[in-house]
Amino acid sequence: VARPIVFLSDFGLDDEFVGVCHGVIATASPDTRVIDLTHGIPPQSVRSGALALGRSVSYLPEDAVVLAVVDPGVGSQRRPLAVATVAGALLVGPDNGLLSLAWEQLGGANEAVAIEAAGVVRSPRSNTFHGRDVFAPAAAALSSGTALASLGPALDPASLAVVRLPEPEVADGEVRTEILDVDRYGNLELAADPDDLAAAGLQAARWLRTIRDGAGDDVRAARARTFSEVPPGGFGVIVDSWGRLALVVNGGSAAEALGAAVGETLRLVAGGD
Amino acid sequence: VARPIVFLSDFGLDDEFVGVCHGVIATASPDTRVIDLTHGIPPQSVRSGALALGRSVSYLPEDAVVLAVVDPGVGSQRRPLAVATVAGALLVGPDNGLLSLAWEQLGGANEAVAIEAAGVVRSPRSNTFHGRDVFAPAAAALSSGTALASLGPALDPASLAVVRLPEPEVADGEVRTEILDVDRYGNLELAADPDDLAAAGLQAARWLRTIRDGAGDDVRAARARTFSEVPPGGFGVIVDSWGRLALVVNGGSAAEALGAAVGETLRLVAGGD
Amino acid sequence: VARPIVFLSDFGLDDEFVGVCHGVIATASPDTRVIDLTHGIPPQSVRSGALALGRSVSYLPEDAVVLAVVDPGVGSQRRPLAVATVAGALLVGPDNGLLSLAWEQLGGANEAVAIEAAGVVRSPRSNTFHGRDVFAPAAAALSSGTALASLGPALDPASLAVVRLPEPEVADGEVRTEILDVDRYGNLELAADPDDLAAAGLQAARWLRTIRDGAGDDVRAARARTFSEVPPGGFGVIVDSWGRLALVVNGGSAAEALGAAVGETLRLVAGGD
Repeated sequence: VARPIVFLSDFGLDDEFVGVCHGVIATASPDTRVIDLTHGIPPQSVRSGALALGRSVSYLPEDAVVLAVVDPGVGSQRRPLAVATVAGALLVGPDNGLLSLAWEQLGGANEAVAIEAAGVVRSPRSNTFHGRDVFAPAAAALSSGTALASLGPALDPASLAVVRLPEPEVADGEVRTEILDVDRYGNLELAADPDDLAAAGLQAARWLRTIRDGAGDDVRAARARTFSEVPPGGFGVIVDSWGRLALVVNGGSAAEALGAAVGETLRLVAGGD
Repeated sequence: VARPIVFLSDFGLDDEFVGVCHGVIATASPDTRVIDLTHGIPPQSVRSGALALGRSVSYLPEDAVVLAVVDPGVGSQRRPLAVATVAGALLVGPDNGLLSLAWEQLGGANEAVAIEAAGVVRSPRSNTFHGRDVFAPAAAALSSGTALASLGPALDPASLAVVRLPEPEVADGEVRTEILDVDRYGNLELAADPDDLAAAGLQAARWLRTIRDGAGDDVRAARARTFSEVPPGGFGVIVDSWGRLALVVNGGSAAEALGAAVGETLRLVAGGD
Repeated sequence: VARPIVFLSDFGLDDEFVGVCHGVIATASPDTRVIDLTHGIPPQSVRSGALALGRSVSYLPEDAVVLAVVDPGVGSQRRPLAVATVAGALLVGPDNGLLSLAWEQLGGANEAVAIEAAGVVRSPRSNTFHGRDVFAPAAAALSSGTALASLGPALDPASLAVVRLPEPEVADGEVRTEILDVDRYGNLELAADPDDLAAAGLQAARWLRTIRDGAGDDVRAARARTFSEVPPGGFGVIVDSWGRLALVVNGGSAAEALGAAVGETLRLVAGGD
């Protein structure tokens, strides 16, 4: 039985890039099922792709072959990777950190190769579309049972590029943290979690004040478990479905209300009763 | 054989929400085929999702398990539903009316349960992503043959929330109706059908005038069967592929030409020869 | 075994049009796999759809049934087509040129029929959604083994509509060519290829100047094999993954930097060392 492929990219869906990769997979391995995780990663945003993979991999089939392509260095010397994880899933993509939060969630990388085998890589190989010519063929090969080692020379897992997430700065009464991601609803995912609030002594605060350095007004947000505990139209700080803190608006978009974007820094302090 | 799942949501495709639900389904039921109906329902627009389901269900496999998630009340007391329809399809989603136009098209709801079974709902269950933790697992269970009754306690179908569409107001020589939906091409779907025109005595009118109360100029639209019967660039009133009246522009966007949006009211009157 | 269907349209993904066609296919032929090539073709842009198909078909399974719907003439007298290609793939779509670059890539069209058979076309057939009522049912029938000839009366392949791409004008030291397409990254695909540069004596030029008639400033672009050979933020002329010349920005969007769009004409001349 072919292993399922789970496919993420920054290709978007307006061009035929995603569909062509599906075609390459279906040609090489007609029985493989392909799940599209998302293709809406902002163009060339490796960190955003790595985050989406990190949030997702524990919900995927254990035998999944993850195919991920966010590849600003396509055509350069960056290596094309296939990685075996301790938990069992295989990962395919460029060596730029994109896969690193996934293998962290899956017990680590215990084997890695550079994808170079002549029977796998398309010939001629374009300089601009390795999704089609390198990564999709490699994922299809792994899906249909080809051994990782036969894709190319072994690499030291410790040599692979990784994405490092910004650490929150925790002080007495304050958590300073970055906006990691914004979702379709305008919820702002923060690089902090409930333990950081506790470390700052804010675990019992019913309201938090969020302060943006040099931009806009402060916001008072209810500490809540669900959207429905936040007053309609009001701000709340909740734990999102991945375990991180998120600044949200009940029935609205926090991103729009604040004009806030990925990469900005917020400070969370006590906001009164 | 696993029943096919047909999946609709307001998740959009820019985040990994849809893909994670696919992953949950593939993990629980590897043989299930999943059809994405659409994930472009405007965020939290229950009526828009209900309309899309109502227009679609008669074109789906009879044994489909419909998985629908537009869920502004996630985390509140709204019940998570699984419904059996008279025609055979099963429906899974929140008890907020989202599923109601679907079961109306499918002969009615003849059995309903609240999804609560410990073996189905993920544990721990998040407060914000029941698509992943409640609805996708329930749909996967139904797809692979789990009995509806084993998902949780029975509910009275008559107690379920429903969406009510705005009724057109028909007078002699006039139909007053709401814009129900706008599609990608800018066609405006109205809450009226050809019988309403007939009831107003307008069935033979070759031209209609559409009047927007307090907004913009009147428009003269040709009564037509197809786009190609409308003069290029001109307005037409046609019967759309779901049987409702639609105000369209041949080769253009009626929504853009009028600046009109869902929820506005139009009056249709005779427009001369 | 059912032949895979590869589906392209201008339906977008915000409405349920694509999903309903999937439902029709799954109802008629439950074992058929469907690959979505793209549904982001600009509304009613037949040439753009034809280009996407032409770039893709050589990467699809040899036995694919290509289902393509960009159909501004829906409801008019334009014929609904099914075409057999020399290479083996079958093509289904309107007779407006949409399929023509695909059969050119596949050795030509050697058999064609008008889709009319009562057992295939849905009854009643809408006047506005032949994707659902004509083309998807025909593709499903072909996928599950129905003979092409049984879909309707034979047509002379030489009578079918075709899309003609704009020919570049090559002079000594200059290539004048149209922008064919713009992708998600803002890369501008040109209607010229490296042979045209060679014919103009520009094959050895390390820099090219691109001149837009009556619009904006000239741009100096590095002749490069890969993005990484172009200075960061600078313009380059590369061969794209389909073999055509493309004007790109390394790490940015050429379309945005230039404000350029499909259909505009560029001149390429030598740009110095």
